[in-house]
Amino acid sequence: MMKLYGYWRSLATCRVRIALALKNLSAEEVSIDLMQGAQHGELYGSINPQAVVPSLIIDDGPPLFQSLAIIEYIDETHPEPPLLPGDARNRARVRGLAQIIAADTHPLIVPRVRGYLENVLQVDEAGRNRWIEHWTMQGLQSVEAHLHKESEDHRFCHGDTPTIADICLASQVFGAQLFKFDTSSVPRVMQIFRECMKVPAFERSQPLKQPGAPVQSAH
Amino acid sequence: MMKLYGYWRSLATCRVRIALALKNLSAEEVSIDLMQGAQHGELYGSINPQAVVPSLIIDDGPPLFQSLAIIEYIDETHPEPPLLPGDARNRARVRGLAQIIAADTHPLIVPRVRGYLENVLQVDEAGRNRWIEHWTMQGLQSVEAHLHKESEDHRFCHGDTPTIADICLASQVFGAQLFKFDTSSVPRVMQIFRECMKVPAFERSQPLKQPGAPVQSAH
Repeated sequence: MMKLYGYWRSLATCRVRIALALKNLSAEEVSIDLMQGAQHGELYGSINPQAVVPSLIIDDGPPLFQSLAIIEYIDETHPEPPLLPGDARNRARVRGLAQIIAADTHPLIVPRVRGYLENVLQVDEAGRNRWIEHWTMQGLQSVEAHLHKESEDHRFCHGDTPTIADICLASQVFGAQLFKFDTSSVPRVMQIFRECMKVPAFERSQPLKQPGAPVQSAH
Repeated sequence: MMKLYGYWRSLATCRVRIALALKNLSAEEVSIDLMQGAQHGELYGSINPQAVVPSLIIDDGPPLFQSLAIIEYIDETHPEPPLLPGDARNRARVRGLAQIIAADTHPLIVPRVRGYLENVLQVDEAGRNRWIEHWTMQGLQSVEAHLHKESEDHRFCHGDTPTIADICLASQVFGAQLFKFDTSSVPRVMQIFRECMKVPAFERSQPLKQPGAPVQSAH
C-alpha cells in the first residue's frame, strides 16, 4: 500500500508520480493544498517536518521525503524498467542533469520562495513572474547546453528510454507551460519533452490532468 | 589524475572536497573565482555549461557536474568507506536529508541569486543578508526536525560514520558560520557538526582553510 502526499501543481510531486507510473506502481494520492497552507498543519508536520511535498509512505514504513531520494528508492526496490543507466559515469551524468532542475532551478520558484518575495520583499506580481521565468529558463537552458555536448540521436536525455533526467526535464517544462513561458530557446529540451509526452506514464502524470487542477477548455 | 574546479567559499565545492578526503583521494584544485565572474568565462563554459562550480575531471573523461552526482560517483567507484547506508530505506533517508540542504537550501543563497536580488530587485545588503539567514536557518531547522524523529544516540545523521547527509549538513553550517548566524535553534545539527569537525577530512576541507580564503586572526 502506497500513499503519495502531494499537490496537483507541485512539480516535485509530479516527478514521483511519473516514476511510479513508469514502474507500473499505483499509489493513493493525498492532496496537501499548498495554496491553503495545508503543508503547515500539524497532521502533515508529523509526516514531513520540512512542510513540503511530496512524501511517500509505503505500508507502515517511515515517510520517504525529497523527490529524487524517493525516486531512487523506487528505482532500487523496483528495478524494471531502470531509471538510471547501468554505468557509473553515465549515472553521474543523468543524476547531474536531474539535479540542475531539482536542485538549482525548481527550489527557487516554489510557493514558500514566492511568498517571501511577495510578503517580505514586496515584489509585485509582475516582478514575481519575471523571477519565476528567469530561473525556470536559466535551468532549462543549462540542461539544453549540456544536451548539445552529447549525441543528439537519442530520444531522451540519455539513450532511448526515460531516466530521472527526463522526469526532471518534463516536470520543469510543465512548470514553464503553466506560466506560458516562451520555450523556443530550448529546442532540444522541447524535442525530448515531446518524446516524453508520447509515454503514457508522463502524459497522465502532468499537473493539469490531476484532480483539483483547473478544467481546461477543449481547444 | 583528478582536477576539481571550485572556489574556496563555495559550499558545493566543499561537499565534494570532503567526500574526496573521506575516501583518501587527492585532486588538484583549480580555483574559479566566482566573485570575479570567472565561471562565465569561455574556458570554464566548455567544462561546465551551467557556469557553476564544482566540476570534477578524472583522467580524460567528461567533466562530472552537480555536487551530489559527483559524490555518488566517487562513492560508487571508491566504495570504502561508504558514504551511504547499505539498505534502500536508510539510503533514501540519508539522500533526503542531503537534498534538504543541497536542493532546498543552498541554491537559494548562491552568488547568482544574490546578484539577482541586488541588481534586479534592488534589495540592499541588509535585506540580502536577511534572505540568506532565512533560507539557511530554515534548511538547518528542517534537518533538525527530521533528526529529532530518529534516535539521537548516534554520532552522525545516520549511525556512527559520516554519510552524504553529514557532508551536506557540515557544508551548510560552514555557510552559517561565514555569515555569523545564530545557530542555537539547531542544537542537534550543531552536535553532529562538532562530531564532523573531529574528522580530519571535514576539518581540513572547510572554506576558511582553503587557498584564497581571508586569513583568520589567531584568536
